[in-house]
Amino acid sequence: MEKPYAIGIDIGGTNSVFGIVDKRGHIINQGSIKTGAYKEINEYVDHLSAGVQEIIDQVGGSGNIKGIGVGAPNGNFFTGCIEFAPNLPWKGVIPLAQMLTDKLNIPVALTNDANAAAIGEMTYGAARGMKDFIVITLGTGVGSGIVVNGQLVYGHDGFAGELGHTTAIREGRMCGCGKKGCLETYSSATGVARTAKEYLQTRKDPSVLRELAIDEITSKDVYDAAVKGDKLAKEIFEYTGQILGESFADFVAFSSPEAIILFGGLIKAGKLIFDPVRKHMEENMLPIYRNKIKLLMSELKESDAAVLGASALGWEVKDY
Amino acid sequence: MEKPYAIGIDIGGTNSVFGIVDKRGHIINQGSIKTGAYKEINEYVDHLSAGVQEIIDQVGGSGNIKGIGVGAPNGNFFTGCIEFAPNLPWKGVIPLAQMLTDKLNIPVALTNDANAAAIGEMTYGAARGMKDFIVITLGTGVGSGIVVNGQLVYGHDGFAGELGHTTAIREGRMCGCGKKGCLETYSSATGVARTAKEYLQTRKDPSVLRELAIDEITSKDVYDAAVKGDKLAKEIFEYTGQILGESFADFVAFSSPEAIILFGGLIKAGKLIFDPVRKHMEENMLPIYRNKIKLLMSELKESDAAVLGASALGWEVKDY
Repeated sequence: MEKPYAIGIDIGGTNSVFGIVDKRGHIINQGSIKTGAYKEINEYVDHLSAGVQEIIDQVGGSGNIKGIGVGAPNGNFFTGCIEFAPNLPWKGVIPLAQMLTDKLNIPVALTNDANAAAIGEMTYGAARGMKDFIVITLGTGVGSGIVVNGQLVYGHDGFAGELGHTTAIREGRMCGCGKKGCLETYSSATGVARTAKEYLQTRKDPSVLRELAIDEITSKDVYDAAVKGDKLAKEIFEYTGQILGESFADFVAFSSPEAIILFGGLIKAGKLIFDPVRKHMEENMLPIYRNKIKLLMSELKESDAAVLGASALGWEVKDY
Repeated sequence: MEKPYAIGIDIGGTNSVFGIVDKRGHIINQGSIKTGAYKEINEYVDHLSAGVQEIIDQVGGSGNIKGIGVGAPNGNFFTGCIEFAPNLPWKGVIPLAQMLTDKLNIPVALTNDANAAAIGEMTYGAARGMKDFIVITLGTGVGSGIVVNGQLVYGHDGFAGELGHTTAIREGRMCGCGKKGCLETYSSATGVARTAKEYLQTRKDPSVLRELAIDEITSKDVYDAAVKGDKLAKEIFEYTGQILGESFADFVAFSSPEAIILFGGLIKAGKLIFDPVRKHMEENMLPIYRNKIKLLMSELKESDAAVLGASALGWEVKDY
């Protein structure tokens, strides 16, 4: 009999969330632990495994589990390792998939969070039935998961799909990766805050944002100001969307996807960001692509999306 | 018994070249007709088919032919049509694959010339054994064929892989496609000539290129000057390679290929263009990609490459 459940584990800098998911994408049960509380990886794996085992027992044991999917920053699908993740407590190369398999005796597949989101959209979300699409995650940074011919693009080394680090502005803003002008320095939540600071410092026009401490302005503050009609705040989103749309035009020239799907915290800005993205994407594409590439929002409920995405990978693990 | 030959047809603006190729990539026999001599597509197909039939008869008839592959500007693999090709005599949508099948009674597959080059490199050339690579063709324009997971990337509509029309310089040079700053306005043979004109008009330093009529300078002239040690001519290639290398860094972030393979007339410039490409590609990549993406020259003999590339597609046609 086919096993009815998969497990998704989403490892973030703050929390590690895990859940049991059925074939229709319903989360049957879930739990979480604090990622940052375990400075030592063995201790972390012990606690994570114990938490996961608990919810496995509640559905009748590991015989009912097809596989475990893990989404983690810098997760490499080919090696099953987390490799040099700057925002996690453990340094170097962590063979997490193997460590979890050893503890739980269930096959584990691991990839980065944006790839997990792409598989999640294909399995349960906006990309059902699509063979060619790109998921762009707009959070603290900008991530991407690319699907071509129905398969995730991992590249020759497992590291494909770092579209947040393509160059949006040559010699532009300094990025945490060491390069200049990366897309994520403009079009992430952090990028919105940087644009706000830049606009407030270089312009004179009034804005409710001027009432805030300039170094503490967040993308949420800019959003709140924009929905109240603040002109400068709206322009910040227009600029964010313009840079994103111009970059999307280049991504389309690469893989001509049926859709680009936006995912993550920043999409709460809705039309404020969607409208300029669409406009500048259309203006910068070759005529053959115009008016046919769909621009969609993620259909995964935000609080569940990370676990669902990771669990989707759990369905695809090879039986050992 | 497996059929021992495939036919490759390369349709260019000037000539249409066709050849019979064996499994090891040897061209057994070939011929050509003038593309521009046939203003009417039916007349063109009649003459092309007659030429191809002649060489088929010489290898014992169509029973020995696995398939026909055609590389053509704006060729769409999904539809088998040439669609709105600006440099061919026939306007609109031409169902060439079907027309040739009707005449010759052999299955025909069609794609654009850069995709044909990529399949050629994978079948007979520098990409043998690779599953993830990008071929960049540097000729009058810049074309590309992208292979991911061992499959050519066609996208949802057959038009993927137009990397020559990604934006190299925002608001840069006007491109024939209607956009500004496309990679091919800088890094094609035409782009080299445009850079030469720009440098000669805006700079004062001496160059043997100043002895030529400025509007007639070709990339060949710049090459000849550079190999003689002309400083300005060398700088033109450095700039051409820089733009190309910067763009390659972004392509790597997309599909993390094992190799980028350069193909076409401009690669005769050798180190003059390779060295700056490599330098700027390395400098602009994320650390995880550095020093591991191969930069290679096409291994297909130039005079044969187009026919070989197209013929490689001929091996892959489905039997009807």
